Amino acid sequence: MTERNIKIEAVERLAVEDQSVEIVERKGIGHPDSIADGIAENVSRALSNLYLDRVGKVLHYNTDETQLVAGESSPAYGGGEVIEPIYILLVGRATKKYDGKKLPVDAVALKAARDYLRENIPELEFGTDVIVDVKLGEGSGDLQDVFGEETAQIPMSNDTSFGVGHAPLTETESIVLDVERQLNGPYAERHPYLGPDVKVMGKREDDQIDITVAAAMVDSHIDTLAEYKDAVEHVRGYVSDVATKHTDRGVNVDVNTADDYDEGSIYLTVTGTSAEMGDDGSVGRGNRANGLITPNRPMSMEATSGKNPVNHIGKIYNLLSTDIAEAVVADVDGIRDLQVRLLSQIGRPIDEPHVADAKVVTDEGVELGDIEADVEAIIDEKLANVTNVTRRVIDGEMSTF
Amino acid sequence: MTERNIKIEAVERLAVEDQSVEIVERKGIGHPDSIADGIAENVSRALSNLYLDRVGKVLHYNTDETQLVAGESSPAYGGGEVIEPIYILLVGRATKKYDGKKLPVDAVALKAARDYLRENIPELEFGTDVIVDVKLGEGSGDLQDVFGEETAQIPMSNDTSFGVGHAPLTETESIVLDVERQLNGPYAERHPYLGPDVKVMGKREDDQIDITVAAAMVDSHIDTLAEYKDAVEHVRGYVSDVATKHTDRGVNVDVNTADDYDEGSIYLTVTGTSAEMGDDGSVGRGNRANGLITPNRPMSMEATSGKNPVNHIGKIYNLLSTDIAEAVVADVDGIRDLQVRLLSQIGRPIDEPHVADAKVVTDEGVELGDIEADVEAIIDEKLANVTNVTRRVIDGEMSTF
Amino acid sequence: MTERNIKIEAVERLAVEDQSVEIVERKGIGHPDSIADGIAENVSRALSNLYLDRVGKVLHYNTDETQLVAGESSPAYGGGEVIEPIYILLVGRATKKYDGKKLPVDAVALKAARDYLRENIPELEFGTDVIVDVKLGEGSGDLQDVFGEETAQIPMSNDTSFGVGHAPLTETESIVLDVERQLNGPYAERHPYLGPDVKVMGKREDDQIDITVAAAMVDSHIDTLAEYKDAVEHVRGYVSDVATKHTDRGVNVDVNTADDYDEGSIYLTVTGTSAEMGDDGSVGRGNRANGLITPNRPMSMEATSGKNPVNHIGKIYNLLSTDIAEAVVADVDGIRDLQVRLLSQIGRPIDEPHVADAKVVTDEGVELGDIEADVEAIIDEKLANVTNVTRRVIDGEMSTF
Amino acid sequence: MTERNIKIEAVERLAVEDQSVEIVERKGIGHPDSIADGIAENVSRALSNLYLDRVGKVLHYNTDETQLVAGESSPAYGGGEVIEPIYILLVGRATKKYDGKKLPVDAVALKAARDYLRENIPELEFGTDVIVDVKLGEGSGDLQDVFGEETAQIPMSNDTSFGVGHAPLTETESIVLDVERQLNGPYAERHPYLGPDVKVMGKREDDQIDITVAAAMVDSHIDTLAEYKDAVEHVRGYVSDVATKHTDRGVNVDVNTADDYDEGSIYLTVTGTSAEMGDDGSVGRGNRANGLITPNRPMSMEATSGKNPVNHIGKIYNLLSTDIAEAVVADVDGIRDLQVRLLSQIGRPIDEPHVADAKVVTDEGVELGDIEADVEAIIDEKLANVTNVTRRVIDGEMSTF
Repeated sequence: MTERNIKIEAVERLAVEDQSVEIVERKGIGHPDSIADGIAENVSRALSNLYLDRVGKVLHYNTDETQLVAGESSPAYGGGEVIEPIYILLVGRATKKYDGKKLPVDAVALKAARDYLRENIPELEFGTDVIVDVKLGEGSGDLQDVFGEETAQIPMSNDTSFGVGHAPLTETESIVLDVERQLNGPYAERHPYLGPDVKVMGKREDDQIDITVAAAMVDSHIDTLAEYKDAVEHVRGYVSDVATKHTDRGVNVDVNTADDYDEGSIYLTVTGTSAEMGDDGSVGRGNRANGLITPNRPMSMEATSGKNPVNHIGKIYNLLSTDIAEAVVADVDGIRDLQVRLLSQIGRPIDEPHVADAKVVTDEGVELGDIEADVEAIIDEKLANVTNVTRRVIDGEMSTF
Repeated sequence: MTERNIKIEAVERLAVEDQSVEIVERKGIGHPDSIADGIAENVSRALSNLYLDRVGKVLHYNTDETQLVAGESSPAYGGGEVIEPIYILLVGRATKKYDGKKLPVDAVALKAARDYLRENIPELEFGTDVIVDVKLGEGSGDLQDVFGEETAQIPMSNDTSFGVGHAPLTETESIVLDVERQLNGPYAERHPYLGPDVKVMGKREDDQIDITVAAAMVDSHIDTLAEYKDAVEHVRGYVSDVATKHTDRGVNVDVNTADDYDEGSIYLTVTGTSAEMGDDGSVGRGNRANGLITPNRPMSMEATSGKNPVNHIGKIYNLLSTDIAEAVVADVDGIRDLQVRLLSQIGRPIDEPHVADAKVVTDEGVELGDIEADVEAIIDEKLANVTNVTRRVIDGEMSTF
Repeated sequence: MTERNIKIEAVERLAVEDQSVEIVERKGIGHPDSIADGIAENVSRALSNLYLDRVGKVLHYNTDETQLVAGESSPAYGGGEVIEPIYILLVGRATKKYDGKKLPVDAVALKAARDYLRENIPELEFGTDVIVDVKLGEGSGDLQDVFGEETAQIPMSNDTSFGVGHAPLTETESIVLDVERQLNGPYAERHPYLGPDVKVMGKREDDQIDITVAAAMVDSHIDTLAEYKDAVEHVRGYVSDVATKHTDRGVNVDVNTADDYDEGSIYLTVTGTSAEMGDDGSVGRGNRANGLITPNRPMSMEATSGKNPVNHIGKIYNLLSTDIAEAVVADVDGIRDLQVRLLSQIGRPIDEPHVADAKVVTDEGVELGDIEADVEAIIDEKLANVTNVTRRVIDGEMSTF
Repeated sequence: MTERNIKIEAVERLAVEDQSVEIVERKGIGHPDSIADGIAENVSRALSNLYLDRVGKVLHYNTDETQLVAGESSPAYGGGEVIEPIYILLVGRATKKYDGKKLPVDAVALKAARDYLRENIPELEFGTDVIVDVKLGEGSGDLQDVFGEETAQIPMSNDTSFGVGHAPLTETESIVLDVERQLNGPYAERHPYLGPDVKVMGKREDDQIDITVAAAMVDSHIDTLAEYKDAVEHVRGYVSDVATKHTDRGVNVDVNTADDYDEGSIYLTVTGTSAEMGDDGSVGRGNRANGLITPNRPMSMEATSGKNPVNHIGKIYNLLSTDIAEAVVADVDGIRDLQVRLLSQIGRPIDEPHVADAKVVTDEGVELGDIEADVEAIIDEKLANVTNVTRRVIDGEMSTF
């Protein structure tokens, strides 16, 4: 073990890619849980920037508990309507006064939520289809101390917490991640009938990958059942194309399998998210920091979105361990499966974790000894620059869900 | 007494115009109580129109309890900011389902509130400076019956209630009403530093009229204390001009008398309403149906704004009694002071009040007998056409506060 | 006029007792508007006492905007159930920190509301049938100054406001007031089927007085329609007895006139208040400071309940003017009708109103000159001791609705 | 693979007990996340029982999104006070009307929450220290179908979901679980200074186990710092005793390590939970269905608490997989580590999972073939009786967090 307590070991288990059953899921940006994550993180960034602008350093806050209460809607071919609005409650605490001056914490948080929704769920009409309310407390006195950037010092860890990251993605993981991004990116841009609430489930048994997509269609762009069926089929074809670029395995794609055309039960929405009709959402219940839910791999329960990026060790270590794993795999050949775990120790600088352990499954023919030094060097360097994570989060360069 | 129980009597008391002390107040459209009134009434109109569009008749609802919870702000020369948003809760009940079809009652109510705010308090940024939430119940089963326009029938009165109206306005009343309207109309259009929260108090002792105006100034249009003082002085001069057009009595005008320049305490706001910094508001606490608070005259406690205009007898009779009084005075000469009261009787058609009583103070030399028949004819005709009130309210032609 | 600007004049109009039509109303303590009033005032008293206990003086607050959102219930003979709870939002502002120490303002307000409900609407199960929530802001900085009792000084008036009081009560007023008090007092104690939501309307035409009572019956104490009818009839008889003690005029009593036995529509409730099923309530919409709504008399629109009793001039003057009128009539013979108005002047001590005017209708054979000095002396003394009002309000000795 | 798709395989990896680093955490019942879990599950049970009582079958609902917003408090030796109450919002959807009859869903949910708090966080005074509010929607029409028990049929799976369970617990897991249960059970009963918000973190490196406990002390039972220190030391000793009963490894125990006596920063609370002063909580963010957070093992992200136990496949499979793993290990010798995963398939009966896979690490000297048939038989039988899970959940016999 090094000075930074870096511990690298070879593990004998099969790489996830080589296990017989693999399950992967991604909740798209329009899923109620992801909406909660996205708002919480955008509010967090807005507060960080508010504090930096006004005070020159990030003060104490956490906004990681946004609760979304679903609305009720009446979708209809050609355009239905929202009956009862979605209700979103921003929850957390923040420093509201500094040096005798009040800071517009609530107003900034509300604006960040509104901006996020406008950008990401554009069909939701703010103030009619969705109400955003706010309850941000002042936090406990003990934590009112200031966490700042005025000095170059590394913050101390204030909790025993744990982060875990993996690389490389398996084929199934790559497919699930990419399918959602392509659908919510270029596809939705060209085909406005596709709403942002896209949920992608991948299941691999040996060499057969099944991709199941639940895609909320926007009713104002779909006039008939025939058009709906076309849309579903078109999505299916597109997803197949995306998926097969990532693998030589067999791929099967299903879209909106819960539909029952005979009963007229289809996945049609007014606003493109199931939050409009019965699906509640909250922070930390969906994707992990790497954008996926991967029951085959160790995961942290920690909600990453909305946490303070300066001093919340759970957030920092989850993002950093993923970042480290990706960096190692990008730079060092011969790794089939890498898991990086960071465990904090209260009262020690966060660049000195209690343990940083890397579990490596090497490619056939590669020994751990061949690569150990390279792996360790990267981990060491990433830990030394741990505050980069904070900066990149504030700048919006690292995704948390 | 007539078939419609119209009762006309001469009263010996002095006309309000001739009493020695008179007090009159008007809360301008930007006052927190008026905001609540205005939203409640706009929501009511929107629901009436929703029901007419979808069902062909107005279903049961009442939206007369909007509660405004003040925010917190930091005004500053050149433009400050809202710190905590104003919170507005739309309260009431409405029919949400008809003939098996859901009606977007909540969504329509929210839209009506948003539209009203945008139109009337334009400096308030929706969703950041103000949150609008909604709690509309379904009402008690007994009242779920339908109130409609399908037949030409006059609705039955469902409550014992009371309305009262007066005419003509005294000079002081005319001044108070006109000052607010001119300030919030042409003046504010030319001088954007004047916010809509203008409160006008008139006090007359014998032949001296004192007008006190509290006018919220908008900080983004005022850069210095000197500019603020100029604005106050300019408002003062304008109000004097408006006032003296209505009277030959002595007029004195004060504006923002609570200011204390030495302590830097002035009436500066970010959004033009004191709702941003500590003044709560609710329906029915401000102006009566004729736009004024007139402690020298009998008033109804009934909140008019937000009530269902088809069957809420208190709303209808307050508006109608004012309408009648104005019509009589417009058509019949020789009246110095007229008070019209309408008292409903449960279970009788609303065009047949339990009592419609008119108390007349005639001009010198005029006997009640000279004009009684004319007065009665007008009252009779107005009662016969009572449903016009409903139509005009729905069309937005009658103001309720 | 005296040093205190006391102005006494004889008026020629008829005493209300002698006018031909009179209307009086009282909303009982279980009426939704009265619940709001009662809670607001109890919260106010609790905060006054909190400040006195902790700080030795009453700090700035106002809690005069409680909003009650009705619930939904399923009453049934023998005992039904509340389906959706009543929601009560405590609104206002209060000083939350003093001398660096936090004051449990929210917790105290909630406790006061809970205690009030338990005492006055005992059938309401707290936390199940009714939710009480709280939004108390910190108020605007300008008003954060301390209003105290540390010195013997009379506070300055901080607003132009107005109070009005009357005495003696007319027979109809006495009946309406007494009927509600007897029903909600001794009667309800002996007959638990009677809920506290008792609304009494009195209408007098010449010498005929009609009393209409709407009385919410509690279903757990009524097992059949026959029992309900008996209860209604029993209330009717009791009210008749109470009423006839106050007058020699003809009295007619109706109870629950909106009932329709054929349609099974009766006034049966689970908790004894219509707030459980569709009737919202808010502060200041019901009874005036003297416990009545009296459209035949000038009234103040000012909500008295919940206001700060140290410095809210509208509250103080409404209570004081009523107190003065009652004291004058108790001590001075020969007065048939007395109206006392107090008008404040910003920046002057509150014992020196801008005008204190008393309008007297004397008994036949009595001249104003006979009693003027006595009246003035009482008004003068009451004004001198204006701070007694504050003390009595805090001690719960003066009712505000 | 069997008819039920049961797949049993030996895995080569080390049992968790034999890995070099192990991390385990349990949030005690008074932790804000656990409060949310506990309320959500108690509300769910209450609704199940309501439906069974009234309708004979469990109707559609989900109440898995309770949001707790922390309050603010001023703890003090001998007893401090709550300043701002905790706010808890019950979120979800439920069937509110059946066969034309309204069901008291909101009232029952509120009662369940209140009862749960009273039982488990007894120092929290309901309605003063904590406000419970409710927003339960009606859900989307498609899901309004009835899920029932009238037939003996196995429900169909309505989602693709995943459950995972493990057995036996490692020593570290056993310690963490038992420590919290003993502290919140017998210890707290004898020592009322210990609040229910006890968080236990276990970390094992090879043969050294570190147990870190954060224990909220109740201020009304602690009068001085010396008493506080004694309490902490006493808890430490007790935890050591509990821990050493489970292991021969080295055990080190730390309690309230974040305390800083010099700065007077200690873990003192008014009500025994950090929810009173800044720690928010929500469902599904804490313990998994087996009561632990175990980053060394695959976990499901699915929130189990509050879900409908009749048809929510994620809830059922998480509880069932844990139940199976425990049953297998109890009955079959020779298993060092067992992981059971159940993957559902939309549209198939829930006793026929898409895959039920068991990964076995055998004891030394034991071959999978020796035990495979026994393991399979138990899994098969448990799946056949899957509806037992529903019944036991409704009866409160299975814990979800």
